Amino acid sequence: MLDLTGTHSTVARFSVADGQLVIGDVPVRQLAARVGSTPFFAYDRQLIDNRVAEVRASLPKAVRLSYAVKANPMPALVHHVAGLVDHLDVASGGELRVALDTGLPPQAVSFAGPGKVDTELTQAVASGSIIEVESASEARRVVAIGEHIGIRPRIAIRVNPDFAVRGSGMRMGGGPQQFGVDAEQVPALMEELARTEIDLLGFHVFAGSQNLHADILIEAQAKTADLILDLAAAAPQPVRYVNLGGGFGIPYTAKDHPLDLKSVGTALGELLEHRLLPQLPEAMFVIELGRYLVGEAGVYISRIVDIKESRGRRYLVIDGGMHHQLAASGNLGTPIRKNYPLVIADRMEPEVTVEATVVGSLCTPLDLMGDRVQVADAAVGDLVGIFQAGAYGFTASPTHFLGHPAPVEVLVGTTKRPPHP
Amino acid sequence: MLDLTGTHSTVARFSVADGQLVIGDVPVRQLAARVGSTPFFAYDRQLIDNRVAEVRASLPKAVRLSYAVKANPMPALVHHVAGLVDHLDVASGGELRVALDTGLPPQAVSFAGPGKVDTELTQAVASGSIIEVESASEARRVVAIGEHIGIRPRIAIRVNPDFAVRGSGMRMGGGPQQFGVDAEQVPALMEELARTEIDLLGFHVFAGSQNLHADILIEAQAKTADLILDLAAAAPQPVRYVNLGGGFGIPYTAKDHPLDLKSVGTALGELLEHRLLPQLPEAMFVIELGRYLVGEAGVYISRIVDIKESRGRRYLVIDGGMHHQLAASGNLGTPIRKNYPLVIADRMEPEVTVEATVVGSLCTPLDLMGDRVQVADAAVGDLVGIFQAGAYGFTASPTHFLGHPAPVEVLVGTTKRPPHP
Repeated sequence: MLDLTGTHSTVARFSVADGQLVIGDVPVRQLAARVGSTPFFAYDRQLIDNRVAEVRASLPKAVRLSYAVKANPMPALVHHVAGLVDHLDVASGGELRVALDTGLPPQAVSFAGPGKVDTELTQAVASGSIIEVESASEARRVVAIGEHIGIRPRIAIRVNPDFAVRGSGMRMGGGPQQFGVDAEQVPALMEELARTEIDLLGFHVFAGSQNLHADILIEAQAKTADLILDLAAAAPQPVRYVNLGGGFGIPYTAKDHPLDLKSVGTALGELLEHRLLPQLPEAMFVIELGRYLVGEAGVYISRIVDIKESRGRRYLVIDGGMHHQLAASGNLGTPIRKNYPLVIADRMEPEVTVEATVVGSLCTPLDLMGDRVQVADAAVGDLVGIFQAGAYGFTASPTHFLGHPAPVEVLVGTTKRPPHP
Repeated sequence: MLDLTGTHSTVARFSVADGQLVIGDVPVRQLAARVGSTPFFAYDRQLIDNRVAEVRASLPKAVRLSYAVKANPMPALVHHVAGLVDHLDVASGGELRVALDTGLPPQAVSFAGPGKVDTELTQAVASGSIIEVESASEARRVVAIGEHIGIRPRIAIRVNPDFAVRGSGMRMGGGPQQFGVDAEQVPALMEELARTEIDLLGFHVFAGSQNLHADILIEAQAKTADLILDLAAAAPQPVRYVNLGGGFGIPYTAKDHPLDLKSVGTALGELLEHRLLPQLPEAMFVIELGRYLVGEAGVYISRIVDIKESRGRRYLVIDGGMHHQLAASGNLGTPIRKNYPLVIADRMEPEVTVEATVVGSLCTPLDLMGDRVQVADAAVGDLVGIFQAGAYGFTASPTHFLGHPAPVEVLVGTTKRPPHP
C-alpha cells in the first residue's frame, strides 16, 4: 500500500488510521459527520500546540511571540492561540475586538495597517493597545483622538526600512511603500511627537512575508537591528517595544523546502544577546507570526459530487472550491498557479494512485483546485483534503461568489483536563 | 479644465455635475451621505436600462435575452433586470432562490454549473426550472430525483464543444473540460435519457467569456450552430431550447476596445434566419449575458483615509480595497495586473492631474487598486471611484479578509412612474 502522508512535509504532520486522514484525533469521515455538512475547514489543535512549542524552543527566551490574527481570525482558534503566545497583532477594528475578547491584556495587542479609519483608531486608543502608526498623518490623527477622548495613546512607529528583503513571497519594505514611515523621515516625526501627549513606545519593522530562506531572514533581522539601533539613538526616550516582524514561510508546494527555524532562532539569539539587549535594556522584543503558527494545521475538506472523463482527462468535481479556499486555486497573489498538497482523505493508503484534475463547483474555469494531481482512485462521496488551509483560507476567499453556503470552520482536538467519566 | 470622463469609454457613460461624478442622477458626495458609509458599490439603473436596450436593438428579435445572475446577484438589481430580460441563468441553489423571488416563471430560469449537489438539483426539479446538466452522471442523478419527488425534470445538455474559442478572457469549451458533456458523447446520452422520465429540451453551449473580438464571437456562434444542428439530428425529439452562451466582453483597461455589438448581432441574425430557425422551428434561442449587461453600470466608491509620500511616490490610502473589489487589485484570474479606470469622483474637472498610487486599507502589498495612475490632486476625505464594478465585484471578493465591515450595495436612479407631488 502507498502511504500518502510521506509525500509532503505538511501532510506528514497528520496521522492516518484505517486509511483515513486523522484531524484532531478524529478520522475524517467521522469528523465530516460530526460537522454536519461539507465543505469545512478543520484546524488541528495539537498541531498548533506543536508548532508554537517548536517556535518557542528555537527562538531566544527573550523574544515575545505574537500571533497575527489576520492569518486566521476564527474566534475559537484565536482564543486557543492567545493562551499559547504572549501577544496578538490585529489589522482592523474587527480583529481588535476578537483579540480583546480573549482576555489578553490590551498592552499585549498591537494594531498595524495602512488605512485605519478614525473609528478604529478611537477603538485602539480607548483600549490601550499599541497602535503601529503607518504615516506621520496617521500619528497626528492618533494625537487628536487621544486629546479628544482624554486617553494617552500608546504607539510604535512602523518603519519602512531602507533595505529590501530578497526571496519573500511578498515584499513589504524597502523602496517606496504604503507601509510605515520611510526610515529617513522617522527622526523628524519622533521630534514632532515628543511635543504631544502620546506615549511613543518604539518601532515596528516588517520587511516581507512568506520567506522560506533562513539566510535571508537572518540577514533581514541583522539589518533591522542596525536600523532600530540607529533610530533608537534619535529617540526622545528609551525604546520599550520593538516588533521585529516575522515573515517565516511555510512550504506550499512539493518543491518548497521547510524553513530552517533553528538557524533563524540561533542567529536572532546572538543578535539579541550581543547587540539589542545591551543597547536597548528596557525594550520588549516581539516576533510576529501568523501563517507560520497555524497555516499547516488546517485542512479544507470537501466531498466529491461528480466524477467525469472528458477527452482523456479525469475530473473530480467537489462541493467546494475557490469561493472557500481562493489561494489553493492560484488566484491570490501568485502569478503562476501551483498545486497545494491534496489527498483523497478517506483513501490515504491506496494500492495505486491515478492522475485526476480536481475542480470546484463554481461555473468558472478559475475554480481549479488540483491540476492533474496523483491521488487515490476515488468515488463520488469521497472526501478530498487540501492542506495548507489553516491561514488565509476562509477569510481570504470570496465566500459569496455564486451564492453557495459558507463553509463551516472547526477547531478539532481536546485540551488537557482532568479525566471525565 | 480637464474632463476625466473622456478618458475611457466606460467612464464616458456617466455624467458629471459641478465637478462630481453622477450615479443614478445623484452627485457622488450626496450619494455617499445618503448611503451612510463608505466604501460602497453603486449601480446606475439607467445605464443598465441603456445597455439592455442597446443589446435588444442589436440582437435579432428572435433571440431571448438571459441575465446570468452570477455576475451580480444583488436582489434589487436582479429584480430590476428581470423586468428587462426574458430569462435568468443561475449557478447555485442560492441564486435559484433569488431568481424565483423575481416572479419570472420558473420555465424562464436555467441552472448551470459543474458541482450541483442533490439538494440543489431537487430545488431545481421542484421549481420546474431548466437544469443544464454538465455530465452523464449528473443527468442520472436528475432522473432519480425526478422519480423520487414525482416531478418530471426539464433539462438541457450542456455540451463541451469540439472547438475552442480564441481570444476569450476565460476559455470554457474545447479540449478536456469540467463543463458540459463532450460533444461526441452527447448522442449516446440522449439515447439513454430517452428511456427515462425526463423532458430533454435542448442544448447549452458556452465556449468562453469576456471576449472583445466580434469576429471571434461570430466564428464561435457559427461553429456552435453547426454543432447544435448535428446534435439536433440525433435528438429523440424536436429541440425546443438552445442556449447559445454569451461571452461578450467589456473593456476593463484603457487599451481594450469595446465589442462591436452590431456586427455580432447582424451575424447572429443571419445565422438564425438562414440556418437555425428553418431547421429548428420549435426552438427558443437564448443569449446569456452577465458582465456585459451590468459590469459597466457599477462604480466602487471609497474614501481617502490617508495620503503619504514615500521615496518620491504619492500614495492615496482608501478605506476599501481588494476585500471588496478583488478583480480591480489584479488578483482574480489575471496573470498580469492592469489598472481599472479610476477617478477622484468629487474632482472630475481638475485643472491638472498628478501621478498617484491608490492602495487599499489591508495590511498586504496585494491590496493595490491603482498603480501610478493619473488623477486629480486629491485630499483626505475625497471619494475615489473605481469603474467596471457592476459585475464580479462584491460577491467575487474576500469580504471577511482582515475583519473589516462589508461594503454596502445600492441601485441608484428612479423608475418611471406617474409624477409625485
